[in-house]
Amino acid sequence: MKVGALLTSAGINIGLCVLFLSLYSILRKQPQNVKVYFGRSISRAHRRPLLERFVPSPSWIVRSLQCTEDELLNTAGLDAVVFNRVLVFSIRIFSLAAILCVFGILPLNYFGQDMHHVLIPSASLETFTIGNVQEKSRWLWVHCVVLYIISGVACFLLHLEYKHIARLRLHHLAQTNDYPSRFTVLVRGIPKSSHESFSSAVDNFFTKYHAPSYLSHLVVHKVGKLQKIVMGAKKAYWKFKHFKGTAVDQPRRPVTYQCCLCGVSSNSFRLLPIEEQERENPCAKDSNLNLPDEECAAAFVFFKTRYAALIVSEILQTSNPMKWVTCLAPERDDMYWSNLWLPYKQLWIRHIATLLGSIVFMFIFLGPGTFIQGLTQLETLQQRLPFLKGILKGKYIPQLVTGYLPSVFLQIFLYTVPPIMMLFSTLEGPISHSERKKSACCKVLYFTIWNVFFVNVLSGSIINQLNALSSPKDIPMQLARAIPLQATFFTTYVLTSGWASLSSELMQLFSLIWNFVRKYILRKKGDSDLIFSFPYHTELPKVLLFGLLGFTCSVLAPLILPFLLIYFFLAYVVYRNQFINVYWTKYDTGGLYWPIAYNTTIFSMVLTQIICLAVFGLKESPVAAGFTIPLIILTLLFNQYCRKRLLPLFRTYPAQVLIDMDREDQRLGRMDDIHQGLQCAYCQSPDTDDIPLEGIQTSSTDEDRCSSSGESSCKEGVDQPGSDLSHPTLKGLPVDRLRTAVRSLAFMIRLQKRGLSA
Amino acid sequence: MKVGALLTSAGINIGLCVLFLSLYSILRKQPQNVKVYFGRSISRAHRRPLLERFVPSPSWIVRSLQCTEDELLNTAGLDAVVFNRVLVFSIRIFSLAAILCVFGILPLNYFGQDMHHVLIPSASLETFTIGNVQEKSRWLWVHCVVLYIISGVACFLLHLEYKHIARLRLHHLAQTNDYPSRFTVLVRGIPKSSHESFSSAVDNFFTKYHAPSYLSHLVVHKVGKLQKIVMGAKKAYWKFKHFKGTAVDQPRRPVTYQCCLCGVSSNSFRLLPIEEQERENPCAKDSNLNLPDEECAAAFVFFKTRYAALIVSEILQTSNPMKWVTCLAPERDDMYWSNLWLPYKQLWIRHIATLLGSIVFMFIFLGPGTFIQGLTQLETLQQRLPFLKGILKGKYIPQLVTGYLPSVFLQIFLYTVPPIMMLFSTLEGPISHSERKKSACCKVLYFTIWNVFFVNVLSGSIINQLNALSSPKDIPMQLARAIPLQATFFTTYVLTSGWASLSSELMQLFSLIWNFVRKYILRKKGDSDLIFSFPYHTELPKVLLFGLLGFTCSVLAPLILPFLLIYFFLAYVVYRNQFINVYWTKYDTGGLYWPIAYNTTIFSMVLTQIICLAVFGLKESPVAAGFTIPLIILTLLFNQYCRKRLLPLFRTYPAQVLIDMDREDQRLGRMDDIHQGLQCAYCQSPDTDDIPLEGIQTSSTDEDRCSSSGESSCKEGVDQPGSDLSHPTLKGLPVDRLRTAVRSLAFMIRLQKRGLSA
Repeated sequence: MKVGALLTSAGINIGLCVLFLSLYSILRKQPQNVKVYFGRSISRAHRRPLLERFVPSPSWIVRSLQCTEDELLNTAGLDAVVFNRVLVFSIRIFSLAAILCVFGILPLNYFGQDMHHVLIPSASLETFTIGNVQEKSRWLWVHCVVLYIISGVACFLLHLEYKHIARLRLHHLAQTNDYPSRFTVLVRGIPKSSHESFSSAVDNFFTKYHAPSYLSHLVVHKVGKLQKIVMGAKKAYWKFKHFKGTAVDQPRRPVTYQCCLCGVSSNSFRLLPIEEQERENPCAKDSNLNLPDEECAAAFVFFKTRYAALIVSEILQTSNPMKWVTCLAPERDDMYWSNLWLPYKQLWIRHIATLLGSIVFMFIFLGPGTFIQGLTQLETLQQRLPFLKGILKGKYIPQLVTGYLPSVFLQIFLYTVPPIMMLFSTLEGPISHSERKKSACCKVLYFTIWNVFFVNVLSGSIINQLNALSSPKDIPMQLARAIPLQATFFTTYVLTSGWASLSSELMQLFSLIWNFVRKYILRKKGDSDLIFSFPYHTELPKVLLFGLLGFTCSVLAPLILPFLLIYFFLAYVVYRNQFINVYWTKYDTGGLYWPIAYNTTIFSMVLTQIICLAVFGLKESPVAAGFTIPLIILTLLFNQYCRKRLLPLFRTYPAQVLIDMDREDQRLGRMDDIHQGLQCAYCQSPDTDDIPLEGIQTSSTDEDRCSSSGESSCKEGVDQPGSDLSHPTLKGLPVDRLRTAVRSLAFMIRLQKRGLSA
Repeated sequence: MKVGALLTSAGINIGLCVLFLSLYSILRKQPQNVKVYFGRSISRAHRRPLLERFVPSPSWIVRSLQCTEDELLNTAGLDAVVFNRVLVFSIRIFSLAAILCVFGILPLNYFGQDMHHVLIPSASLETFTIGNVQEKSRWLWVHCVVLYIISGVACFLLHLEYKHIARLRLHHLAQTNDYPSRFTVLVRGIPKSSHESFSSAVDNFFTKYHAPSYLSHLVVHKVGKLQKIVMGAKKAYWKFKHFKGTAVDQPRRPVTYQCCLCGVSSNSFRLLPIEEQERENPCAKDSNLNLPDEECAAAFVFFKTRYAALIVSEILQTSNPMKWVTCLAPERDDMYWSNLWLPYKQLWIRHIATLLGSIVFMFIFLGPGTFIQGLTQLETLQQRLPFLKGILKGKYIPQLVTGYLPSVFLQIFLYTVPPIMMLFSTLEGPISHSERKKSACCKVLYFTIWNVFFVNVLSGSIINQLNALSSPKDIPMQLARAIPLQATFFTTYVLTSGWASLSSELMQLFSLIWNFVRKYILRKKGDSDLIFSFPYHTELPKVLLFGLLGFTCSVLAPLILPFLLIYFFLAYVVYRNQFINVYWTKYDTGGLYWPIAYNTTIFSMVLTQIICLAVFGLKESPVAAGFTIPLIILTLLFNQYCRKRLLPLFRTYPAQVLIDMDREDQRLGRMDDIHQGLQCAYCQSPDTDDIPLEGIQTSSTDEDRCSSSGESSCKEGVDQPGSDLSHPTLKGLPVDRLRTAVRSLAFMIRLQKRGLSA
């Protein structure tokens, strides 16, 4: 590839980017797209004059840049800040690397050999890589020094970020005073006993061994069978709301729906406004409804102080490590309920199975990949599938098939990776959404690094991959030979895949199209209300992959750095904008993505150093190679230091902080309030995981509507205390169906309330 | 090698063994060897009639076999039981393996090829290995089935042992009620502060954060400078005792020595009998003597309950994981004091350095080894060192040089390994003797497995070793080719090295010779009193290496199994005898050698299976190879199960057990006594590590002697309460010297007391 071609490609891509960004700045001002681009903050979407709506403006960039870290922390949570810091770190280190490498190394590479230099635009890109430097060149020490500087500064910056994020994590811990999860321990593997229920077993155990700090408990119930009925009920309810929706202008009064969902059409039940229902029986009702035979061997145990909960979660309870397994409970919104009722002793085997599964998937993925790349050979294709001969005779069709289809297929295959990894992570049995996403993030990261970086460099089929793995000694040499050659590919990869992915992230193409289809083709009223949480498991691996490319190419093929730097700047603006406007932070890991990012960065650095060592070896420069070895050792020592000094803070909470918080709360008399809220916090409603969140936001506008036509009659009920089960219109229904119906409605009301307060 | 040769060799070795055992049974009855063979239980050594003394008898074998596990546990501690269980496990599994392989596989191997069979005694040993089986043989499934049976039974037995030892560990924990270590947390990395001492920092911190359970603390003092003076004092004392020793028949009365050790010969000081001294000021004196400028950033913190200590030791204390680092304190006798005053933040770097050091040592060890093996080539030697030509012309000298010296040199080199690994482990900075020995045990184990097993099989110089490491895929194939060939070597290794090492262990050659030299050449009075604790770091790796040989050779070359079985039977008898009679259990890891033994066994099994897989591959038997793969997976799953189910019990103590123990003590009112004993338990005396234990045992006989001749005068002092510093004869000495002297003497008395009670 020539420099000119690269610049053309870059120009085209920059043009496309500018086009997309302008498009975005127009589209976001259209009122019909408010839900797509301002999912998390609808209030901001105000009507603008028509002209302004169709003029592109960079105001969103300014707003995205103006947002401070504190604002980001408050709006989008600690994970968003971590993501932001990863971008900041990348921008800093690659700015330095770009300056050093472009002005220091690029000329050295270019004039590395005595050769006739053509005009720069038509020079081959390979003349800019280290491949162009003569063997035994005296100038290789410059590469070595630059490697030292980049590694040193990267370690320094990494340490800064690590300390900063650890401080933020502790600060976040101290700030979020009222999180019930800090007082709650999730106990699993409660031993089964014929003469007492799980509930009394938990009570006995904790009263016996943790009496001073034990508060109460809540046994987890398996709602598998009920759930189906409830889901049916809910679907019916939403349908019924959509098609019969007529507003009645008397809000905040009890409302009675006909009980069409229980199969007995002549009965109806009251839907109490939220406040009343909460006042009447604050959540105790749910646990009353639990049938004893549904109990799981898991329970939430509440403690009087945070420190007590921490202790119980960290200490081995009994002499059987598979029984009475304790860990701090996730937040209520973060709970992944359906995994809670998996038997604990199954988990280790699930772990191994999914690990094996994802490794196998990682290796066999290239099977279809290489098959598809076979499409580029038109002749082979025609031989294999003779009936295609007619079709492939046209002028444009062959070009399309060979030039475009393979990459489309490959992209489609690549799009299946995150969901599949997410599936693996689900099967693993995590008990929280955040844990599941974190686990999927790791899997996607390994997959990406392996399949984009190593496989491209080692250019291999499965056999080649396995060969490479089985002779690890040769890998650095192979990489050293391949990277200067593959740098061109990686540069174009940054231009196309990197920039393009940012544009598509910003445009939210899927949401946009779905919104359009919904509004103008399906003609549904109201907006689409799918609000996602940020897909860390797809975006973090991308950013980290570009970091890896940046490190490995920096000294060897520095031409990639300016393009990479543009990518990171763009990413910084785009992702901040998305955090502020688009995504909704339903759950948070508390900064646990940072160790992943940190480990990957250290891996990238050490890999770079090993590759450089091999390159210096190939270039027969013993001095440069010799000086690279201490650098590797120093980097590993730095890593070990960080693991000792900072990593423990991401694994547990320090006692000092928790005890101080407990004391503060006791001093201010807040403890009793917190204790009262605990039992409610983990009240188990029908599985939230499988309920589409559609309709949550709209409920703020049409929550007071009541259907009054057709077979369903809308009457105004009287404000009546007590359980709905005593209501006369519910007579004649089987009790368990009634219970189901009530629970499902109570849950929906809670959802509505959440929609209101958000 | 022919079968006949092997049998001859076995016969010779058996004869030698019988000779050595008979010799032992005679030597042990000689009164002058009592200290060598009955170090830990002198009471047993009673005088016998002269004739009986010189007739070999197997009574010791009977006694060794009669000893029950409980007795072993009570006499020699949990580690000895673990060692014993490893032997029992080996005997069981290799009995089964021997039966299956000798009767099932050996005939198959022998008749594996259509060939002319010579008489068995002159048949090559290789006809008994799997190498003799034809390719594509239909009989390979037998090997596969036997492999399955051995692996299955091994897993079953391992699980039994694991559960048994875990139960013993818990039982041991519950039994040893009064261990002060369970109430004590060792805090390291106490932050330095200009305005308060370490002592008040510890007090403030624990009063603030652990007030309900905090009892008291004891700051560790660095006794580096003092120590030298003390050592000088002690040496002078011992000398003075040896040469001037005259017994005075009034025991249990205060005794005054002239203070020759302080350089002022006209003064003397009293040596109070133990009981009085203890009664007068029970150890508070020691801490009074500590000078403030010697404080280290480490302290023992005592808690009211075991559970509280466990909590503090397991929870991260502050937001800086390098400060206030807590762990449960080792036992008093187990403390390795001189490592206590290493700064905590140095440790991680020491860990890495010693790890690197021992890996390098492991690889370069073969440097001298191969050089020595070069001695076998006489011509090369004569070329290199021409002056040897004259010497090497004799008849016997060349045979000696080529046949005997290399193996002697190699053995000498091998003898240096455990001390060097022990040195590495010391440098690592462990705070207890048991931890140090455990760490050395691991290092020696890796070294042995690598340098005896792999290097012999891969038959390599350093370059070959590195080559093998860098292409791990080829290792199984290489092993599969080499093991049937190397089986002969391993068999002779078992015969010579295994059996011989047991004989030398039993004979205690070093102690015997030293005892002889001491008594009859140096003409010292009294016995030699070096009583060691059991050298787990040399013996456990040996036993585990033989286990590895047994597993890997079982299916492939079963002829080794009978010899191995004899080794394990012998080892069972010998080591039990040594535990009962010879070694003194000063410290105990509480069964922590078991996970090492378990891991090695699992490693051996998986390695065996992988090698078998490769052999089946080489023999082109896809069925057998195919069936071996699930076996590997099943074994790894079993391993994972044990790690989840049982390993945590070896890492920490379960809360339930500790809380029950605390309650029991509270109920019986023992808690106050225990609390009072705590402070004394970790009273810091001059470094015990560097003091030779010589003289401890003799003190039981000559403790009441008092010197009365020459410049030292022996007077009977009056029983006087209070500190010795007020004694009139001590006036005129600098206070710090007095303190030193008193401390050193107090320490010696404590040693004497221990000698008495043992």
